[in-house]
Parts: sequence; structure tokens; C-alpha cells
Amino acid sequence: MREIFKQEMQELAEGLVTMAEHVATAIENATTALRVADLSLAEQVIDADNRIDELERQIDDLGISLLARQQPVATDLRVVVSALRLSATLERMGDLARHLAYVARGRYPEVAVTGPMQDILDQMGAQATKVGRRVYELLESRDLSLAATVEQDDDVLDQLHRDSFQVVLDEKEPLTRQQLVDSVLLGRYLERFGDHGVSVARRISYLVTGDAANAVHNPNEEGPHLD
Amino acid sequence: MREIFKQEMQELAEGLVTMAEHVATAIENATTALRVADLSLAEQVIDADNRIDELERQIDDLGISLLARQQPVATDLRVVVSALRLSATLERMGDLARHLAYVARGRYPEVAVTGPMQDILDQMGAQATKVGRRVYELLESRDLSLAATVEQDDDVLDQLHRDSFQVVLDEKEPLTRQQLVDSVLLGRYLERFGDHGVSVARRISYLVTGDAANAVHNPNEEGPHLD
Repeated sequence: MREIFKQEMQELAEGLVTMAEHVATAIENATTALRVADLSLAEQVIDADNRIDELERQIDDLGISLLARQQPVATDLRVVVSALRLSATLERMGDLARHLAYVARGRYPEVAVTGPMQDILDQMGAQATKVGRRVYELLESRDLSLAATVEQDDDVLDQLHRDSFQVVLDEKEPLTRQQLVDSVLLGRYLERFGDHGVSVARRISYLVTGDAANAVHNPNEEGPHLD
Repeated sequence: MREIFKQEMQELAEGLVTMAEHVATAIENATTALRVADLSLAEQVIDADNRIDELERQIDDLGISLLARQQPVATDLRVVVSALRLSATLERMGDLARHLAYVARGRYPEVAVTGPMQDILDQMGAQATKVGRRVYELLESRDLSLAATVEQDDDVLDQLHRDSFQVVLDEKEPLTRQQLVDSVLLGRYLERFGDHGVSVARRISYLVTGDAANAVHNPNEEGPHLD
């Protein structure tokens, strides 16, 4: 019984690592698809999201089955409940990458956004890709120094997001209505991706150190609001 | 032991009803604050969100403590795990109402959006308010006919959201950059509020009927995408 338990806890951890790896690939491909108007890459991201959703279901089924059969307590219970939350957050990160891919596909063969907003969105995409990569590395290595890096990368992402509003709000910037709408939505998706990355990082810190001061109780907490 | 267990399960259910009641009030006040540029109502929504967050923490603490001490199985386990997920979804709905309130406050003493977009956003706000109200009633009564109503209300909300893009994308519509940005973000917040409402409705249906075909596995699933 104890052997099966250990093995299943291991499976749970590995499932999250696999999920995070898929998310890291998805955000990298989605931002590339947006940057260079690559239709097949965009479609690859959209298709690959099914796999992320399927991994979430597997992790949840295993987690709930573990709770029912093994009735873990203390740290083990905390790990299982956290796994259920981490899977939901990673699934949401996959959705946001898919949203980026929808925009890339919808504007193909054009690049969705050009001009000064393209530059900011490219930078935001690069930051989000960093967040996705670090979250994967953190889940794999449990090296908590990576959690701090995720926070820093997200701070840069938030600053870029604030900068992006300066551009879209400037009536002199030549942007079509479609580009304006896309800019606002893409900015929002990328900012949210970063927020969720921070939520994963804090939850892992909490799991490893047991220090609730490092934990985000609310995985949806956002940074300072713009309004 | 069994008595305490029953009492705590009851507390969990009541906590969710209270949370949903606060969320229903928040969305109603936030959409009113937007419609009539009511600063004090907007601030009320922003302040009240702390209470929603606090309720989420209480529900989560109680849920996890129940798992640890009572080790529920079968239906009881499903109820506790669902409570943890419902609290996260309701918390997110509260955040979205708060986002609406931020926009209302940021544009005060002006109404944020005027003209044809104002009309659509008012209608979206009214639909979201219906969703919030029904979700509360559903949690309180467990009357599953309300779950179907939530889905229908959300369908109308989604259609209005699609309509809203026709307006913002029309270069002839006189909208300032700020109004364009606000319109896109407000539309997105309201649409997401509806999605989360549907997620709550399906989860409750699943809990009551045990029929997974009625359940959304993924609480973040969105309707058909626009791109």
C-alpha cells in the first residue's frame, strides 16, 4: 500500500512537470506564431492544447483517487490538494497560449499587430516565454531560486503591459481598429499568463518551504491594477 | 465525530452560498456604477472584494481541514473537492466585478463608455447580473432548473460580446482610444464572468446528479472563440 502510494505521488508530480513542459512549448510557439504570422505553428498550439487539457484530467483523477484510497494527511495532503490547483493553473496558461494562437491564425497572412505595439507585444511575448520556461524548470528541479526569477520576469511583463497602454491610448499612433482590439486582448492574455506563472511559483515555494508567507492563497491574484 | 462532520459539511455549503451572495451583489453594483458613473458604489465593490477573498480562505481552510481530519470518501469527498473549486471560481467572479469597478472609478465623473457601445455594455452588464443572481439562487436552493437558466443567460451574454466587436471594429463609430480600450476590457471581463457562472452551474449539476456529462471538467472553459 505504502509503495503504491509513493509511486502515485511520484506520478502526480511527473504529470505536473509534463503539463508545464507542454505549456512552455505552447507559449513559445504561440508568441513566435504571432511575431512571424506562422499559420501552421498557430494551429499546432491550438491542437496541442487538447493534450494539456487531457493531462489536467489525468492529474485530477489521480489526485482525487489518491484522496479517496490513501487518505493522505499533513504534507502529503497538502501536496495532493496543491497538485489539483497547479493543474488548473497550468491548464489556464495553456488556454491563454491558445488564445494568442487564435489571434495569429485569425490575422494570417498578416502579422496581427505592426508598428510600435508590435515591438512591445514581442517583448511581452519573450517575457511570457521566459515565465513558461522557468515554471517548467522550477517544477522539474524544485530549485526555489527559479521562483524568484519567475516573479522578476513577471514584473518586467507587468511594466511592459503598462507601457502598452501608453501606445494604444495615444490617438496619434496609427493603429487600425482591429489592431487596437488585438493589442488590448493580446496584452491582457500575456499579462494573465505571467500572473498564473507567479501563482505556480508561489505555490511551489509554499510546498517546499511550508512557509505560507511565500504562498499566494489566491492563484488568481493580479498585480496592481491600471485604473 | 459524525455529528461534527455533518455540521462542518453544512458550514462548507453555507460558506459557498454566502460567497455567491456577495458576488451577486458585487456584479450588480459594479455594472450600476459603470452605467451611472457612481464613484461611491464603485468603491464599495472594490472594498467588498476583500470580504469575498476572506470567505474563500475560510472555505479552503475548512475544506482542507475536513479532508485531513474526517477523510471523507465517495460523495462526501466529491463535495469537499468541489467546494474548493467553487470557492476559487466565485473568488474569480468577485475579481472580475472589482475590475469593472476600477474602470468606473478611473473614468469618474464621466461615464466610461458612451454611444452605441454603452448600450451593448449595459445589456451585457444586465446579463452578467442575472448570471450572478441565478448562481446564488442555485447554490442556495440546489434547484437544477436554475443551472439551465444560467447557461441561457450566458449564451445571450456571449452573443452580445460578439456584437460588441462589430461596433468597436467599425472605424466609423466615434470612440476615443480610451473608450475603445475600456470597451474591449469591459467586454472581456463580463464575458469571463458569465463563463465562470456556467462553470459553477455545471459543477453543481454534477454534484447533485452525479452525471459527469453535465459537468465541466475544466472550470475555465470558454465558449466559441471569436478568432
